[in-house]
Amino acid sequence: MTSNRTADLGFARLDLDRAGRTGTPEVVYAAGKTPTQTVACLAALLDGGARPAWATRVDDATASAILERWPDAVVDQEARCAFVGGLPAPVGNVLVLTAGTSDGPVAAEVAATLAASGVGCTRVDDVGVAGVHRVLAVAPDLAAADAVVVVAGMDGALPSVVAGLTDRLVVAVPTSVGYGAAFEGLAALLTMLTACAPGVLVVNIDNGFGAGVAAARIVRSAQR
Amino acid sequence: MTSNRTADLGFARLDLDRAGRTGTPEVVYAAGKTPTQTVACLAALLDGGARPAWATRVDDATASAILERWPDAVVDQEARCAFVGGLPAPVGNVLVLTAGTSDGPVAAEVAATLAASGVGCTRVDDVGVAGVHRVLAVAPDLAAADAVVVVAGMDGALPSVVAGLTDRLVVAVPTSVGYGAAFEGLAALLTMLTACAPGVLVVNIDNGFGAGVAAARIVRSAQR
Amino acid sequence: MTSNRTADLGFARLDLDRAGRTGTPEVVYAAGKTPTQTVACLAALLDGGARPAWATRVDDATASAILERWPDAVVDQEARCAFVGGLPAPVGNVLVLTAGTSDGPVAAEVAATLAASGVGCTRVDDVGVAGVHRVLAVAPDLAAADAVVVVAGMDGALPSVVAGLTDRLVVAVPTSVGYGAAFEGLAALLTMLTACAPGVLVVNIDNGFGAGVAAARIVRSAQR
Amino acid sequence: MTSNRTADLGFARLDLDRAGRTGTPEVVYAAGKTPTQTVACLAALLDGGARPAWATRVDDATASAILERWPDAVVDQEARCAFVGGLPAPVGNVLVLTAGTSDGPVAAEVAATLAASGVGCTRVDDVGVAGVHRVLAVAPDLAAADAVVVVAGMDGALPSVVAGLTDRLVVAVPTSVGYGAAFEGLAALLTMLTACAPGVLVVNIDNGFGAGVAAARIVRSAQR
Amino acid sequence: MTSNRTADLGFARLDLDRAGRTGTPEVVYAAGKTPTQTVACLAALLDGGARPAWATRVDDATASAILERWPDAVVDQEARCAFVGGLPAPVGNVLVLTAGTSDGPVAAEVAATLAASGVGCTRVDDVGVAGVHRVLAVAPDLAAADAVVVVAGMDGALPSVVAGLTDRLVVAVPTSVGYGAAFEGLAALLTMLTACAPGVLVVNIDNGFGAGVAAARIVRSAQR
Amino acid sequence: MTSNRTADLGFARLDLDRAGRTGTPEVVYAAGKTPTQTVACLAALLDGGARPAWATRVDDATASAILERWPDAVVDQEARCAFVGGLPAPVGNVLVLTAGTSDGPVAAEVAATLAASGVGCTRVDDVGVAGVHRVLAVAPDLAAADAVVVVAGMDGALPSVVAGLTDRLVVAVPTSVGYGAAFEGLAALLTMLTACAPGVLVVNIDNGFGAGVAAARIVRSAQR
Amino acid sequence: MTSNRTADLGFARLDLDRAGRTGTPEVVYAAGKTPTQTVACLAALLDGGARPAWATRVDDATASAILERWPDAVVDQEARCAFVGGLPAPVGNVLVLTAGTSDGPVAAEVAATLAASGVGCTRVDDVGVAGVHRVLAVAPDLAAADAVVVVAGMDGALPSVVAGLTDRLVVAVPTSVGYGAAFEGLAALLTMLTACAPGVLVVNIDNGFGAGVAAARIVRSAQR
Amino acid sequence: MTSNRTADLGFARLDLDRAGRTGTPEVVYAAGKTPTQTVACLAALLDGGARPAWATRVDDATASAILERWPDAVVDQEARCAFVGGLPAPVGNVLVLTAGTSDGPVAAEVAATLAASGVGCTRVDDVGVAGVHRVLAVAPDLAAADAVVVVAGMDGALPSVVAGLTDRLVVAVPTSVGYGAAFEGLAALLTMLTACAPGVLVVNIDNGFGAGVAAARIVRSAQR
Repeated sequence: MTSNRTADLGFARLDLDRAGRTGTPEVVYAAGKTPTQTVACLAALLDGGARPAWATRVDDATASAILERWPDAVVDQEARCAFVGGLPAPVGNVLVLTAGTSDGPVAAEVAATLAASGVGCTRVDDVGVAGVHRVLAVAPDLAAADAVVVVAGMDGALPSVVAGLTDRLVVAVPTSVGYGAAFEGLAALLTMLTACAPGVLVVNIDNGFGAGVAAARIVRSAQR
Repeated sequence: MTSNRTADLGFARLDLDRAGRTGTPEVVYAAGKTPTQTVACLAALLDGGARPAWATRVDDATASAILERWPDAVVDQEARCAFVGGLPAPVGNVLVLTAGTSDGPVAAEVAATLAASGVGCTRVDDVGVAGVHRVLAVAPDLAAADAVVVVAGMDGALPSVVAGLTDRLVVAVPTSVGYGAAFEGLAALLTMLTACAPGVLVVNIDNGFGAGVAAARIVRSAQR
Repeated sequence: MTSNRTADLGFARLDLDRAGRTGTPEVVYAAGKTPTQTVACLAALLDGGARPAWATRVDDATASAILERWPDAVVDQEARCAFVGGLPAPVGNVLVLTAGTSDGPVAAEVAATLAASGVGCTRVDDVGVAGVHRVLAVAPDLAAADAVVVVAGMDGALPSVVAGLTDRLVVAVPTSVGYGAAFEGLAALLTMLTACAPGVLVVNIDNGFGAGVAAARIVRSAQR
Repeated sequence: MTSNRTADLGFARLDLDRAGRTGTPEVVYAAGKTPTQTVACLAALLDGGARPAWATRVDDATASAILERWPDAVVDQEARCAFVGGLPAPVGNVLVLTAGTSDGPVAAEVAATLAASGVGCTRVDDVGVAGVHRVLAVAPDLAAADAVVVVAGMDGALPSVVAGLTDRLVVAVPTSVGYGAAFEGLAALLTMLTACAPGVLVVNIDNGFGAGVAAARIVRSAQR
Repeated sequence: MTSNRTADLGFARLDLDRAGRTGTPEVVYAAGKTPTQTVACLAALLDGGARPAWATRVDDATASAILERWPDAVVDQEARCAFVGGLPAPVGNVLVLTAGTSDGPVAAEVAATLAASGVGCTRVDDVGVAGVHRVLAVAPDLAAADAVVVVAGMDGALPSVVAGLTDRLVVAVPTSVGYGAAFEGLAALLTMLTACAPGVLVVNIDNGFGAGVAAARIVRSAQR
Repeated sequence: MTSNRTADLGFARLDLDRAGRTGTPEVVYAAGKTPTQTVACLAALLDGGARPAWATRVDDATASAILERWPDAVVDQEARCAFVGGLPAPVGNVLVLTAGTSDGPVAAEVAATLAASGVGCTRVDDVGVAGVHRVLAVAPDLAAADAVVVVAGMDGALPSVVAGLTDRLVVAVPTSVGYGAAFEGLAALLTMLTACAPGVLVVNIDNGFGAGVAAARIVRSAQR
Repeated sequence: MTSNRTADLGFARLDLDRAGRTGTPEVVYAAGKTPTQTVACLAALLDGGARPAWATRVDDATASAILERWPDAVVDQEARCAFVGGLPAPVGNVLVLTAGTSDGPVAAEVAATLAASGVGCTRVDDVGVAGVHRVLAVAPDLAAADAVVVVAGMDGALPSVVAGLTDRLVVAVPTSVGYGAAFEGLAALLTMLTACAPGVLVVNIDNGFGAGVAAARIVRSAQR
Repeated sequence: MTSNRTADLGFARLDLDRAGRTGTPEVVYAAGKTPTQTVACLAALLDGGARPAWATRVDDATASAILERWPDAVVDQEARCAFVGGLPAPVGNVLVLTAGTSDGPVAAEVAATLAASGVGCTRVDDVGVAGVHRVLAVAPDLAAADAVVVVAGMDGALPSVVAGLTDRLVVAVPTSVGYGAAFEGLAALLTMLTACAPGVLVVNIDNGFGAGVAAARIVRSAQR
């Protein structure tokens, strides 16, 4: 039976047993919270047993506040994530591809999420379809992966090509990279939703965290 | 090494080895094709080894043409799918939930896709969040599933609630059910993409086929 | 019979008898006005009899200008509201729920509006549907309320669940919290407009003021 | 304590105790259901105790099927609603205004919903702001109402004017009446959401049912 | 016969005879131009005979550069316009109404454009429909006007009401005042385009200049 | 002083004195009304003194019903308008231009509206900017006009060019002619709103009636 | 020097010298014209010297009317085009690729346009990126082409891949093939506009005619 | 046979043989890269043989870093481009037109791209359709060009007019110049996609680079 403990901080009611129910603890979304609020949430989650306690969309001020409180916290600047309480040993292997260098921060959030979830990760950057031989060259990586995350902005065409090359599930992350008719990631989002190859599942624009959680669930599912 | 045989029908160039590469054969999208074209595609896929050869978005005229050519074809009217060449024995179990009765045809397409992919399926309909006890009542089904597909139109809120109750991957399918500000499924699509619970992955509006293929990959991944 | 006195300040023509006609005085929308203009409007409304005279979307400069003129003014920083002339004693009880901590400032504007309208308020924060037991736990609060205001960004799914649990009117406030496909509150707005549970009424994105005025009217209607 | 009985029809799981929880029984949304499915749902709701059992978006075929099964059913053609099991005696009074004649069917759905909810209704049609004296002329009706529902398409300007004339809550229903930049009701929806007068709450485009349920809750709230 | 002299400044080719052809000289749109470019354009237009030479969307740096070159230039800060070479004596009378104080800068651009065009202007601010008696009170101003310009943000409902009260042409200017579903003026724009009263013509969001030019043409047309 | 007589038909409340107030009588918008309702409205307007009584968006059934009641009614099939009670003698001259042949029905509605308003009209069709000499060739017509109405679909570029050639007011009517990125007239609407030449005023997509009323007001203004 | 003859048919003013100016004669857009109007336009263009005179978006009724008047007209049913007066001998070679069978009718319009323009064409269908080896297999066709036209619906990803494989100009035609988030071709349009490979130019959704004209200009340019 | 060398910098995998395949080398998109990353990419491309190695969207910090490393680099500030390794001698002639002065930076990017591609360029600015004689005056430039690039914001009407005057291919570049209903370039984009004159091909908003590459391909195609 599931227990449903809650930590009530006044401004937040933390769901302490979410990891037990869903495999992922409640994670603090630091955007829109003060550094003090984020630290208080992390402390409560630690107290509740989360390993690691974990925040996303962490800006510099919040990162400093976390490191001041927990000097051994792990802060991943590219991913804008922070982890307190240690990272688990990784199992399995998720392949994370980016279409371009500018998609790097979102891919970093995927990788950090996998690390916090105890899942291994192979990252290959800048595999744009404008040089399709670069895509074909990742065939061995595809064969070695439990699941694939594809991060792409602008035309968002990479998942369509990758999904035609593998029987692994492809988690597609549109990014807000691009300008004009990219409409802050809308073009890539629509491309991925209408991908002509099946086996492509989509998360929100720039949502590396969600893609990482999903990929971790696939790996864990394979190990159940 | 992958082989890449192609069947060139003039109006179509079928990818005969897609099942070998991706686990799913090329499937005929019958919308926008004549019945004759769909039958010709199915015949070529059968010749190429597909079991089953398979078409989606099949209207009545196309269904008749298929049954005339292959009297033992399986036509699923609710799902608008047709299968030729026999269905494989199912393994694993995917839970398919709908928020309302009107979402039924899309859920039927999910179920038919799973059947053609050799994956088992449990379907529970009309589990809308307006009566949240109905959602809580599916907890045993969630525990017994390898993956979950949630089909919902209108506000599309069901995947957010379900993903908070399980550690299985949740594949969310927005449907075009609704009117006005539902904007033909756009409201549900945006809701699912911004779901406050992680572990939700989204496919195109009304894309039961894509959700089924993805869920089948998860099950197969668990059995690799 | 209604009287229709107007105070003409040149840059503004204030509707002094609006409270008499509508139960709510004209309230100064400080965004787009200079601090001097806002102070002048408040003074004219005070002269016209408003208790309190009241401004929304008050930034720091405007707050300072108000406090300089009326040292006993009440400034609610989280809600960005200012009140001059005293607050009435509260009657009734409106339950104000937020889906997440980041929705706090909008909920604060609801609460401030209720206070200025002489209506009591119970606020419960961070009741997201990803931990649906937190929603179920507010059942006693629902039973004790005259009306409910639900404030939610991202997927905006909370009002759909709440409206299925109560016979009170649910006023839903979408917020601009979220990123990507949240489209500055559009996703939550569409979700709320298409809520599968009836009894949900919607105001503009981030419009805590409008929700508060509406909830106050419900309470007053119950006391007529 | 609330009970949560469910009637499982296979294609639908009806929420039999929704009236107890929310004051409104589960109502059958007939669009997207076959006449047979709608009749089966109504029968189950009747068995479950609903008085009346009730369906919306009823087309001619469904209306005939209902009348064949229950010859004394009430079918409101303009509102496209059907009621089985008798209508309650009305209490209270809701004023329903339309901006133009073409908004009539949506106003009819509001009125039918109020009737089924046991709430009285006064309807005044064609009160467009292009002849603002017609709006001013409804002042006595406003004073006699417990709540106001305003139904308007095209520019959707009527709720802004009405809300400035009354202290009653104004429930605004945008309709899909209009062409071109009316964008199927989007223009009216945005107008109502941004109404310069507070006290306006909005439902989905053409959602007369939702407006009626909400207005009934206001009346009941006043009588609690 | 029309002459078509052009002044070629390299970065700009000014249309020196536009006033002869269209009644309005080429006006410098200073947004996107450097102060130096704007001054050079004004000088060339002066040389070409424009009285006044005229720039819109003038920021502080550009205003300073203009005043340094022509100390007797007229700079209207609220309207962000600058005029060099003297303003003509006004004829006729255009009534300029705003729905709210925040619409003032756009109304100022209308008034400045009329002044530069040699047309008289009466301005009445803050005539919102939430206090419809304020609208009715401008009846004498309407009767005395050759044309009416209505400037409104948020719900943009004012032109619909005004056009029902007068036989003058109503030029409607949506503004970007508002938040959320106002979508930077889109809501007001759609409202005005779908106004239920005929006789309403619409210009771009915040386009006080265009409204002023149009109103001046109406006045001149009446005096031809 | 204005009188404000109203004819209450139950389903409609007609504004009998609108012509006195605004120069244009209330006109029946027949879309969304039954033929019987339209005839009843026309009869009431005739009784109220309208000459002509007038309906727009008249389909074949409504046209037949009108001609059966008033055999001498004028029905303009291209414009989908009907007039009862005689047309006034025309004064003044409005030039109506179309960009293409497919824009004809909207231009016909402009012309019919002018005729009913007692204003003369010169119509020149198919003056697209792809052959700009055709536009230049209408210079004499521009010089002879009191105002110009430009009707264009697809790219909607014609008003920008015309407004650079004349000092007359240009009323621009976007049409829903086109496909794909024309988005049912949205492309032309945006083009016209952002026309680089001032003096362009815009009405709703396909709103020939509104353009005609506006142009008539300009002519009348010139004759006051 | 260019001459600018015009044929005035009342409902249309045909630009007889457009071929001389632009290389392409005025072509009749039959959608929105009656069969009689289309035939009259073709006759006038023939008289004016067009070889062929040419109509697009021809429905069955119009095709019949054309063949009745000119029994030797060429009607291409898939492309919905008709040509009168003979087709020129082809020079050069344009490669026309489609991503799927359903894109066929648009590709047919491209091919028909090239034929009418005297340009040769090689067509390869169903080259979707989900089987990227099919794309790589067209390398010899790319090398033999003067220009490439790529026709694709759904995700519209094919031009991005093709443009990375060739130094020919790629004209991309989004089609309305797809459903849901394809939004009638919008997804493919945005994908193509944001293609990560340069050298991709885009036309309107389903605009095979425009793509053909453009490709013909490239070929002619190469032969000047 | 094509070779496909790749330079793997960790954060980027550069496609060294793209110039051989497509005629244009991989170009560094500096937005979203650090100055150090951009310099590293340029160095690797130089090593791989690119002449010039080339970056777009270069801000001041990146420009400084480039000039520090390669003092003889060419930095075009208006175009925000940098070139290392020398520019080729130009052949052919592309006419680049702008509708207004504010479109200058995008036109500069077109010109810089042509220079780096070894193609000549004639630039004529501020040729807006509001003074259509300015457009007609470029006829000699059109006759002397191999291809035309038209850069326009706001209404984006210029390509429609130009394409009717020439048989050259017209590459249309919408810009984000404008406000309100220009929607950051969307209005101009839609106008250009629906241009009533064929022969217009469109690139992304503000994409001067893409337009330049395309125009260079046309010139090279003419010289093959």
